[in-house]
Amino acid sequence: MISVEAARERIVGRMRPTGAESVGLSQAWSRVLAEDVVARLTQPPADMSAMDGYAVGPCAGAVGDTLRLVGAVAAGHPFEGTVGPGEAVRIFTGAVLPPGAVSILLQEDATATPDQVRIGEALVPGRHIRRAGQDFQHGARLLAAGRRLGAREIGLAAAANHAWLSVHRRPVVAILASGDEIFMPGDAIPPGGIVSSNSHALAAMVRAAGGHPVMLPIVRDDAGAIADAVAGAGRFDLLVTSGGASVGDHDLVRPGMERGGFELDFWRIAMRPGKPLMFGRLADTPVLGLPGNPVSALVCAILFLLPAIGRLCGLAGEAPATLPALLAAALPANDHRADFLRCSLATDAEGVVTARAFTSQDSAQLRLLAEADGLILRAPHAPAAGSGDVVRVLRLADLGV
Amino acid sequence: MISVEAARERIVGRMRPTGAESVGLSQAWSRVLAEDVVARLTQPPADMSAMDGYAVGPCAGAVGDTLRLVGAVAAGHPFEGTVGPGEAVRIFTGAVLPPGAVSILLQEDATATPDQVRIGEALVPGRHIRRAGQDFQHGARLLAAGRRLGAREIGLAAAANHAWLSVHRRPVVAILASGDEIFMPGDAIPPGGIVSSNSHALAAMVRAAGGHPVMLPIVRDDAGAIADAVAGAGRFDLLVTSGGASVGDHDLVRPGMERGGFELDFWRIAMRPGKPLMFGRLADTPVLGLPGNPVSALVCAILFLLPAIGRLCGLAGEAPATLPALLAAALPANDHRADFLRCSLATDAEGVVTARAFTSQDSAQLRLLAEADGLILRAPHAPAAGSGDVVRVLRLADLGV
Repeated sequence: MISVEAARERIVGRMRPTGAESVGLSQAWSRVLAEDVVARLTQPPADMSAMDGYAVGPCAGAVGDTLRLVGAVAAGHPFEGTVGPGEAVRIFTGAVLPPGAVSILLQEDATATPDQVRIGEALVPGRHIRRAGQDFQHGARLLAAGRRLGAREIGLAAAANHAWLSVHRRPVVAILASGDEIFMPGDAIPPGGIVSSNSHALAAMVRAAGGHPVMLPIVRDDAGAIADAVAGAGRFDLLVTSGGASVGDHDLVRPGMERGGFELDFWRIAMRPGKPLMFGRLADTPVLGLPGNPVSALVCAILFLLPAIGRLCGLAGEAPATLPALLAAALPANDHRADFLRCSLATDAEGVVTARAFTSQDSAQLRLLAEADGLILRAPHAPAAGSGDVVRVLRLADLGV
Repeated sequence: MISVEAARERIVGRMRPTGAESVGLSQAWSRVLAEDVVARLTQPPADMSAMDGYAVGPCAGAVGDTLRLVGAVAAGHPFEGTVGPGEAVRIFTGAVLPPGAVSILLQEDATATPDQVRIGEALVPGRHIRRAGQDFQHGARLLAAGRRLGAREIGLAAAANHAWLSVHRRPVVAILASGDEIFMPGDAIPPGGIVSSNSHALAAMVRAAGGHPVMLPIVRDDAGAIADAVAGAGRFDLLVTSGGASVGDHDLVRPGMERGGFELDFWRIAMRPGKPLMFGRLADTPVLGLPGNPVSALVCAILFLLPAIGRLCGLAGEAPATLPALLAAALPANDHRADFLRCSLATDAEGVVTARAFTSQDSAQLRLLAEADGLILRAPHAPAAGSGDVVRVLRLADLGV
């Protein structure tokens, strides 16, 4: 059995970021840049007025002085001419500063007639002027490859005159659930049959992480059928299986995949829930075999699938972020397996988070997992912890899970 | 001028959650439930084995005892018959417990011949058995209306036999940018012209919040053209404008919309960046008029547009979550306006967050906003704060911004 950290490193280390595709700016939100975004223009393109008022030429600029009004300039309509000493031009926010102008007189500080404007507040040269290139210069690297695109990045790329961005292709992640007892929701369910929940939850997690899920049809407990189902694995960036990864007579996922050339890297991880995790490679496609129990499958997916997809998307593939929390109740010492305890979280007015482990940690109780706010991380051989002790927790809603 | 809190309450209070639509489970991730999800079956449907081993009938269950093997039962293949005293049935994980069985003997604790199995570890009745309904009972309310669907909720809905879910329709949010000086990325940009960044960033924010953005073509500084552009506003759940919301001669958004019947609720908020924010109603559609400066527009959108879309989606429309942070450097006392200072954030090994305000807080510098990790919240009239003082910060990446 290997540790959670070693398993994640090995899994993420085998992922190769997908190639690039061009997407329109309006489809780029949450995608990851495959190339730097370099400014295609200078912003602002010229010195511009930051306010409505008057652009003033060289002058003493004292209160009571009067300037000659020689024109007007609005955003998008540059002034034809220059502003000389003792002259002023009516100007509006976002308009290019006319040549010769050195100060802005705010309109609330001005008294204007059709020909003249009187200064009501002493001028400060350069004030209320946005200088050319103050935001960025043509050729500046604004966003680096590997960056996930939020709304700000998309606005910045637009301002830099990019209508298209080169981003990593969404990794295609196939999900295979197997078992004679499982059926799709809405299908006729025979006695003793249950509805497959893992493939639906995993598909949602693939979406949350930025991938494109392909849900393969449920395959029965038959090694030949499993071999057939994964025959097209080479087309996927990652294949995820759920269930059948243990060593029982009815755990046929591994034997089935081995008929197609599956090579095991490792299986069994020192963690709870989730021991029988399997990782390997089939037709050059990485294969992550998750446990069949719903809670085990989802906890393993949080720890291993989310970073793996992140890496495929071009991110670093780091472990999901944790935060510190105070224990609401004592926990016993841990054995050799890392524990991920379903818990409720409460945040007080000062932002201090308290975590309370659920009484039941049964790995088949999906409802309890859905009611959990987080997972308390307990390291292998962690000593007993008392109420008020600090632990690390993983907040589930932050992950789209 | 009204406060940030009062403005958000008034804006969110005018939003009506959209109606319901049915979506397939595979399209439901991140949507908000319009109806409760009630279990359509009991899970597990019957008592089931949690392990591979032997289902054992009534017996002493002592180490060394031998049981008669009378059959086998696998997941999806219920046993035809009962298990009597002194009898055992081979069983696999997920299989329905045969009638009469009271204990599970793990396979690693058993020595089996074709006819018999010997007990290697004393039996505990009920152990390793998942009882019918242990996860949920038919008719139980599993998820309440108003809940956002993560991967766990989707898995739970699947397990409860729902192939379709009733969710709030994605609100359609129209975005209108106006100005003689702005152009779309890739268009020919005349001297003094700039590329529209607000509409692209806002469209991304609408997506981040779960809405469907409609980017209206850029409209020039002409009241008639603006009136024409918003003539179809009644089809949208929300109309967002950017720029032209002030009172200058070239701020024509309000006069243009007034030709179409726009009714102002309020404008001007005591905040920086972002004072000239406008809110009202046009043809029964709420209208949010954001400032034209990119940083002002995005900060106002974070504070007001994200909660508004959340409410339209069926959520509560709460203010974006903040967290406590220590100031890395002193800040001066604040005036009557709430301040939202662009800052970098650093988290130490204990999870303590430190915030350092940028030196420049210019509301036109989009690049600086893109480089910021967060916003430091400074209340109106906040006293001077020293290095190490606790402030509240808003982490931008958490919001998809």
